[in-house]
Amino acid sequence: MTVLVDVSIVPIGVGVSLSRYVAACERVLQEAGLHPQLHAYGTNVEGEWDQVFAAVRRCHEVLHEMGAPRVSTNMRVGTRTDREQTLQDKIDSVRAKL
Amino acid sequence: MTVLVDVSIVPIGVGVSLSRYVAACERVLQEAGLHPQLHAYGTNVEGEWDQVFAAVRRCHEVLHEMGAPRVSTNMRVGTRTDREQTLQDKIDSVRAKL
Amino acid sequence: MTVLVDVSIVPIGVGVSLSRYVAACERVLQEAGLHPQLHAYGTNVEGEWDQVFAAVRRCHEVLHEMGAPRVSTNMRVGTRTDREQTLQDKIDSVRAKL
Amino acid sequence: MTVLVDVSIVPIGVGVSLSRYVAACERVLQEAGLHPQLHAYGTNVEGEWDQVFAAVRRCHEVLHEMGAPRVSTNMRVGTRTDREQTLQDKIDSVRAKL
Repeated sequence: MTVLVDVSIVPIGVGVSLSRYVAACERVLQEAGLHPQLHAYGTNVEGEWDQVFAAVRRCHEVLHEMGAPRVSTNMRVGTRTDREQTLQDKIDSVRAKL
Repeated sequence: MTVLVDVSIVPIGVGVSLSRYVAACERVLQEAGLHPQLHAYGTNVEGEWDQVFAAVRRCHEVLHEMGAPRVSTNMRVGTRTDREQTLQDKIDSVRAKL
Repeated sequence: MTVLVDVSIVPIGVGVSLSRYVAACERVLQEAGLHPQLHAYGTNVEGEWDQVFAAVRRCHEVLHEMGAPRVSTNMRVGTRTDREQTLQDKIDSVRAKL
Repeated sequence: MTVLVDVSIVPIGVGVSLSRYVAACERVLQEAGLHPQLHAYGTNVEGEWDQVFAAVRRCHEVLHEMGAPRVSTNMRVGTRTDREQTLQDKIDSVRAKL
């Protein structure tokens, strides 16, 4: 099952500068072949269900290894059976109506 | 890795009454042994990472089987390495400060 | 416009123990008359749109006053025009189908 | 208080094609001067707290006027007092560590 996901990861207990942790997760998502599209409050990815959630799990593990005692992630997860749709399709579809 | 998760699942394209879909997912989470705690805008679960995300995947599959062409889920996902903490511990910890 | 909201507030840069900050926000929501229902990964509230978002703003202000340099909140926000529905109605509606 | 927000709006009860509703909200956010940055699973905005949440309220009202009986929105909301930060600053900060 293909899934489109938006991931926003927050390490807790490592102070106020989070960007190097977010960048570490971004590299995990890239290496997993999920084509991450970074925005200012998260990252869009697309892939097979198990592949995506294994990569997000790896993000949690990496952030813990970097010293974060707690990691809290917010995810939006979308699946559909009526037709195939990529991340770019979703953006194009809205832009066509603007 | 143990994970505490809050799941809010929304089937799209099946009209305005969503409760029987939410109930179907609730049963999936119960059968997976995740001790779901239903609230008005989602469900808290706790378990092993792979067990939890396999169950949420099953929720998406079941809702598609029930006729929902699209399913969109919002999840909050927490892990920690400093100590063990259950869902009830989190609630007790806040209540003790009220 | 009446709104049902689930609020999950995370202060960043204050270490790993967040419960006294969550409790402070809980008190703000109570004092605003929003009938907060605490769960393990957030709090359900209901009220008029402007009343609810003024209270969440006050939560951010209070947490900053308590010393949090950053505050990140995740919210689910629901409105409907087809009928009135309380937080308890939503829970009852799902439970009736279990 | 300046706020950075990511908004993901879902009309419920209007079928499976949501893009014209998302586009309508996008126009509301633009007209409110919030510089919306559309991505595949939401939109980033920045502005003053009351200005942002008045605009999101207007999105709910517009979608109801377009015929959606229910509207469910997920928002990530960030404030900070240690320094000023724009949406672009957040992206640049992560990219510098990639």
